[in-house]
Amino acid sequence: MKNFFVKSHGLGNDYIILNQSEIDFDLTEKAIQRICDVHYGIGSDGILLKVPSLKANFGVRILNPDGSEAEKSGNGLRIFAKYLHDYKIAKPPVFTIETAGGLVQAEVTEEINGKAQSVKVDMGNAIFNSPEIPVNCQNPECIDETLHLEYKDYKVSCVSVGNPHCVILTDKLDEKEVKTFGPQIETNPMFPNRINVQFAKVLSPTEVEVMIWERGAGWTLASGSSSCAVASVLVKKGLAQPNLTVKMPGGNLKIEIDRSWYIRMTGAVREIANGTLSNELLEDIQ
Amino acid sequence: MKNFFVKSHGLGNDYIILNQSEIDFDLTEKAIQRICDVHYGIGSDGILLKVPSLKANFGVRILNPDGSEAEKSGNGLRIFAKYLHDYKIAKPPVFTIETAGGLVQAEVTEEINGKAQSVKVDMGNAIFNSPEIPVNCQNPECIDETLHLEYKDYKVSCVSVGNPHCVILTDKLDEKEVKTFGPQIETNPMFPNRINVQFAKVLSPTEVEVMIWERGAGWTLASGSSSCAVASVLVKKGLAQPNLTVKMPGGNLKIEIDRSWYIRMTGAVREIANGTLSNELLEDIQ
Repeated sequence: MKNFFVKSHGLGNDYIILNQSEIDFDLTEKAIQRICDVHYGIGSDGILLKVPSLKANFGVRILNPDGSEAEKSGNGLRIFAKYLHDYKIAKPPVFTIETAGGLVQAEVTEEINGKAQSVKVDMGNAIFNSPEIPVNCQNPECIDETLHLEYKDYKVSCVSVGNPHCVILTDKLDEKEVKTFGPQIETNPMFPNRINVQFAKVLSPTEVEVMIWERGAGWTLASGSSSCAVASVLVKKGLAQPNLTVKMPGGNLKIEIDRSWYIRMTGAVREIANGTLSNELLEDIQ
Repeated sequence: MKNFFVKSHGLGNDYIILNQSEIDFDLTEKAIQRICDVHYGIGSDGILLKVPSLKANFGVRILNPDGSEAEKSGNGLRIFAKYLHDYKIAKPPVFTIETAGGLVQAEVTEEINGKAQSVKVDMGNAIFNSPEIPVNCQNPECIDETLHLEYKDYKVSCVSVGNPHCVILTDKLDEKEVKTFGPQIETNPMFPNRINVQFAKVLSPTEVEVMIWERGAGWTLASGSSSCAVASVLVKKGLAQPNLTVKMPGGNLKIEIDRSWYIRMTGAVREIANGTLSNELLEDIQ
């Protein structure tokens, strides 16, 4: 269908899906910005553009609202996989997707009436090597190191899952604490590229509750990479099984970590609406 | 079509249109909030719900993103009129619409290929009576009165077009000045219900350029009621003809004022997208 779109979200992270072969306009930077703008367009956190792939079953370009391209997005991939499944573009429940960040596998793990409810996607490797994260730390891995802030010290454990994370274990989660100290931790000189911060309370070896301070974004209800980071640190420290549920204010994600520290993430995806971009919108972006 | 929606905007003020007789769910406060949320829903400045009317050709309820109901919205009415025209629900170019704020007339003034490009709607009366606006002023009408701020005095002229406005004439429009003094004027004790502020530069008897500080919203690119207010004050002061174009950073509106100070506004409307609300969204709001 010409200029057909689908809008979906995973834990409140929303994308508009377009198919390269179904659109009859140039998806320029201006067009992306307009479509993602809530007042002059539909509004979203980005666009997932289905493109052909020679290496995988399907290809996708993940486009940010400013028109730039993202290498990966766990939520974006789950949303894209649900679209491929629900619109019967992908036949089997397991398939491969090529992204700018490499090849990933996607699996529809639950469906109701032909609609995917839950999708598992590859999230890549957890990396604990301090310079690679990067974190200024005298030890090769930054686990249970002390971070000195002006009024408080924290024990922190750091990991990269494509982007850098700093995990703090706590007995009591406190939104105010996250919002007060999150920005101080994010910008601490210990982290040359700044850092994403998670406060984590272990509920059982298979359940952890998390609050997030996201680098550049602040307080956020849910995050795929943050979930992977917390799970990796807990497994590393022997505090959790390699198959656990991360509970966030915005919803839950299941994380699996194999022996080579490769991470897979499973979570819900919901379709919001589908339809057609109007000719008047397309005239305004040419 | 079941759960069909249209999203359109007028100068960047965007609404989602739904038809009461086509939706199969309760449009509760929660449902409105969800549909207007850009992450969990489509995202918009409000919903226009087509309802039956006994008094007019059509009825509309204007719903704010928080679920409350608005009495009127010039942009909302233009958007709703374009929808009635483009989807062939209204046959003639002129028809009446019943709103919570009363009956208004709408007219499609320009169309291309059956799509309305420009719509004229009734905006009600300009009221200059000081207590009705309300403004604390010793004179019955507040025209060219001095407003004392801490570091600056302004000559202001006030009018109500359903909400209160304070118009300042200037030879040079300056965004920084609007953002610096707008909030001070908005909250000055001279205006018991606070006030919308317009800085206006007359270009000719039929053209005025305007920058807006909106009560409760701040710097805004375009506003229908602000355009009506500026035009009313200029006509009152004999500085403009009763049929003039108001140019704002977000676009232009044409304002007509008749001898009884009744205002009509004409401006562009653009459709962004149309489609179907997904069952999964509707499940989540039940």
